[in-house]
Amino acid sequence: MSYTIHIDSHRKALSAQKGDLLVDKILQAGINLSVTCDKKGLCGKCLVEIVDGNLPPPNEQEKYLMKQKNYPQNFRLACSFRVADDVRIKIPEESITKDVLVLTSGLQSIVSVDPAVKKFHLQLPRPEISSPLSLMEILERRLKEKRMQAPFGLLMDIGKILEKCRFDVTVVVYKDKELLNLEPRDTQALNYGLAIDIGTTTVALEIVNLNTGETIGTSVALNSQSIHGADVVSRISYAYQDPNKLYKLRDEIRGTLNSMINKLLKETKIAPSNVYDITVTGNTAMNHLFLGLSVDTLALAPFNSVFDCLPELSSRDLGFRINPYGKVYVAPNIKSFVGGDISAGLVASDLANKKGIYLFIDLGTNGEIVLKNEKDLIATSTAAGPAFEGMNISCGMLAQPGAIYKAEYGKKLKIYTLRNRPALGICGTGLIDLVAILLEQGKISPSGKLNDREQKIHIKDNIFLSQNDVREIQLACAAIKTGIKMILEEYHLTKEQLDGIYIAGAFGNYLNIENAMKIGLLPRIDENKIFFIGNASLAGAKTFLISAPSRKVIEAIVKKIRFISLASRPSFQQNFVEAIEFSQGL
Amino acid sequence: MSYTIHIDSHRKALSAQKGDLLVDKILQAGINLSVTCDKKGLCGKCLVEIVDGNLPPPNEQEKYLMKQKNYPQNFRLACSFRVADDVRIKIPEESITKDVLVLTSGLQSIVSVDPAVKKFHLQLPRPEISSPLSLMEILERRLKEKRMQAPFGLLMDIGKILEKCRFDVTVVVYKDKELLNLEPRDTQALNYGLAIDIGTTTVALEIVNLNTGETIGTSVALNSQSIHGADVVSRISYAYQDPNKLYKLRDEIRGTLNSMINKLLKETKIAPSNVYDITVTGNTAMNHLFLGLSVDTLALAPFNSVFDCLPELSSRDLGFRINPYGKVYVAPNIKSFVGGDISAGLVASDLANKKGIYLFIDLGTNGEIVLKNEKDLIATSTAAGPAFEGMNISCGMLAQPGAIYKAEYGKKLKIYTLRNRPALGICGTGLIDLVAILLEQGKISPSGKLNDREQKIHIKDNIFLSQNDVREIQLACAAIKTGIKMILEEYHLTKEQLDGIYIAGAFGNYLNIENAMKIGLLPRIDENKIFFIGNASLAGAKTFLISAPSRKVIEAIVKKIRFISLASRPSFQQNFVEAIEFSQGL
Repeated sequence: MSYTIHIDSHRKALSAQKGDLLVDKILQAGINLSVTCDKKGLCGKCLVEIVDGNLPPPNEQEKYLMKQKNYPQNFRLACSFRVADDVRIKIPEESITKDVLVLTSGLQSIVSVDPAVKKFHLQLPRPEISSPLSLMEILERRLKEKRMQAPFGLLMDIGKILEKCRFDVTVVVYKDKELLNLEPRDTQALNYGLAIDIGTTTVALEIVNLNTGETIGTSVALNSQSIHGADVVSRISYAYQDPNKLYKLRDEIRGTLNSMINKLLKETKIAPSNVYDITVTGNTAMNHLFLGLSVDTLALAPFNSVFDCLPELSSRDLGFRINPYGKVYVAPNIKSFVGGDISAGLVASDLANKKGIYLFIDLGTNGEIVLKNEKDLIATSTAAGPAFEGMNISCGMLAQPGAIYKAEYGKKLKIYTLRNRPALGICGTGLIDLVAILLEQGKISPSGKLNDREQKIHIKDNIFLSQNDVREIQLACAAIKTGIKMILEEYHLTKEQLDGIYIAGAFGNYLNIENAMKIGLLPRIDENKIFFIGNASLAGAKTFLISAPSRKVIEAIVKKIRFISLASRPSFQQNFVEAIEFSQGL
Repeated sequence: MSYTIHIDSHRKALSAQKGDLLVDKILQAGINLSVTCDKKGLCGKCLVEIVDGNLPPPNEQEKYLMKQKNYPQNFRLACSFRVADDVRIKIPEESITKDVLVLTSGLQSIVSVDPAVKKFHLQLPRPEISSPLSLMEILERRLKEKRMQAPFGLLMDIGKILEKCRFDVTVVVYKDKELLNLEPRDTQALNYGLAIDIGTTTVALEIVNLNTGETIGTSVALNSQSIHGADVVSRISYAYQDPNKLYKLRDEIRGTLNSMINKLLKETKIAPSNVYDITVTGNTAMNHLFLGLSVDTLALAPFNSVFDCLPELSSRDLGFRINPYGKVYVAPNIKSFVGGDISAGLVASDLANKKGIYLFIDLGTNGEIVLKNEKDLIATSTAAGPAFEGMNISCGMLAQPGAIYKAEYGKKLKIYTLRNRPALGICGTGLIDLVAILLEQGKISPSGKLNDREQKIHIKDNIFLSQNDVREIQLACAAIKTGIKMILEEYHLTKEQLDGIYIAGAFGNYLNIENAMKIGLLPRIDENKIFFIGNASLAGAKTFLISAPSRKVIEAIVKKIRFISLASRPSFQQNFVEAIEFSQGL
């Protein structure tokens, strides 16, 4: 027998069969009804108002929710409601999925909130003498799971906790299959996670409300490992075959993270015990060093990592001072130096699902390039060196207050500093602008030679560019250029066939695209096809945090992605040498 | 196109299609070819000799195995061999599954060796520059698994181990999904596990070769918790609401176990690092106390346990001094006091698969009774008290040297002591014999009253039975009798319908069935239908150890088994009072 579901709030009418689950029909109709408990009647998010039609008596959970939300008595959970008649409903705004924007510039990327750690407030039945279920069984039955894992420590406390709160408890569940903790009474609202991006130079973190996907606070700091070398290669050399030095680097970054977390939690007034999940993104060297895994295999050809997809880790394993039963997810490495920062960037930009041909470029110390052609993803990396981060440059500096981040030449040279502070040095985008201007003025020859007696070009006050600085930039550009050229050639593509280039990395919107093309860093294509997506690695960390399914998605991608080792190609040297000339753009 | 497989060794001829896997055809023909790696070409056990027919070149693993075993060049792994022609083979005896007898008395129970922990010796490919797989990926691909878990500690060493042994390594795999360890070179032969039965009174353990299922050594000791009470109830009372006392009991049993293990490993010259798996059986109170879990919920009605099926545990969690990456499996509790010793007994006796109607009775301090009717399993428990273990009896003792374990009356009383030592006391089976004899002689009345002025019956030297002792035995019998009566009545069954009774527990073959019937402990049925199966709990521990599938089997059974709470039935008191008369047999 066929019935009609009228959804007044969405002006839709659906046809349904007797016994159909209301939630299924609503979702099939393309309405993003919120359900995060696999339709088990646990999360209480899919409440709809039954305006007209057969109204079964409310179950315990529905009674509780209507009372809590001050709703009238005709609200029911769509995941517990079976069609038995024509029915007229209204879906309140609150029951619609909140999507979260994880990339805020260049490209819109939307993620539905479905975190790995969920909290469900439950009124559990007490065991009965006629069938004295075990405490674990009582929980499993209510959660509609057959067999759950639980930390051993929790098993020791489970009876005490349940007795104390009289079986009125919030269960903390990980990936629907592990019971992480029990908290007395209703603590559903207190569910937080941390997204951490460990960059070679800077570390960024966000604290996120896992119920809403909303970022509550952010923090940025320098990677304290920097004193042992500005780039990935020097850190690896430092830790090579010396566990003590490896552990020193590990402890430095963990110390940085713990003090950042500590400070941020205090600022946002969030208790460490309410944080159960951490996601970490970073390049291959950074995630190995953070974990304390040997980087010896990354030091020598074939430069292989210890892991791609990491086994599950607990926050205790890694010394994080959050809830002791907390979990840590580390973004998978693709291959070799194409690491978890790139897999995170891919998931944040949703590159695999774009129609067309795209390049994803991370302009960091290591330049990683991913080509998405009609069918596949292909990745490579190229050692650009830290010039774009202002390192190894006489007057170079990070993009911090006082850095020259932009330069123009009208009648005379005009420079811009971050926060308008007196100029202290030049950061990556400033270097690109200056080299482009000096090239045009002929002060730097296309081959990169300074046409100046002093072998120094003064920019302002004590700030200058040396012949060596220009060489550093030249090499960095050549590395990227060669990577782009070879990955396109591999698939017989020309730059004209590209539907877009996504630029990830610290440059952000400050990069002058025209100047980047002039010095040959970017291929000369329509400027509108170039998008800066900022710190896509951090956006990926946030995506993994608020969307557990995104983890499975990226792991499947990582296993399928093709990797090209540029350095092992005989044509690499030839291409690289040719690319060194600034004028030799793509 | 149809071909014929001639199996000369088994005088069989099978028909096969082109491309059929040889292993599948052999198994379908009912030949127990040994394969323990899910046909992935890893375990090397399914080698067969290709006597005639198309012989493809051997793969690396086959070359290695033929060399190692000194076989001629025409042996191939049946799991890698696809039929392409008529083929004539011989299956060597070595490639046939060795079944293991886990119960040695009363009832034959056979288990195929398929342990949770397996070792595979592998020659791994080294990573290549053109596609630098991560070390985890290299392992996963070779093991044909997509995504494996691994202990964090192993991740820290994985590179070092592989480098040191030049990728010639034995992988230790748990349940096909977790990498437990890597051991340099071939250590396949060194794979051991421990089966532990924690009884209220005695603790028994076996060390088992996980490749063959063979028991290498055994050890028995008293449960050192006994000083805090002879039975389950007194231990629970001791630990009730006092974590310090709970941990004291926990540490006592763990101490006992660790020193037993230590001694047994030394005797058998097995390194602790070669032991990766432990299975533990015991009643509900014993497994809670061993784990250090609160017994508070077991102290009061409704007597519910913390767990039925326990989450996975590591040997480190429990302080076992075996390989630090080792695992511990605890037999699931059924409900309330029907614990892991009974689920272990059910799996060892394979009760669920028997055709007909059976009773399984564990005659211990707690009497557990399981009825298998045509379709279901129904369990109950009844507090028999420790009389059958010689406790709370004036001259009672455990079945140890010097215990009167048997008595007969021809012309005069003849007593037998264990190991023929001078009589020190009376154990359970001796008590049953003596009470039966004294009943027959009229020295004890059917109501249990001693017809003796001194209220004491002298047995030998200083050994006697008091009125109180007889009352203890009476109550113990009545508890068991009531349990049996009520569980049969529940399903409208009579004792005549029983196809058999399995008696588990320490009594072993010493119990005189006729006497047990005389005092009303056992229902009067054909003696040939009664089987003593000895320590079925330990046999179950061994079953779980050598057969990972048996764990899944019992967990499914435990979730379905029906539980009857005798004490909550109004008819219980009435039945119990009636059963107190010795003469009131079933």
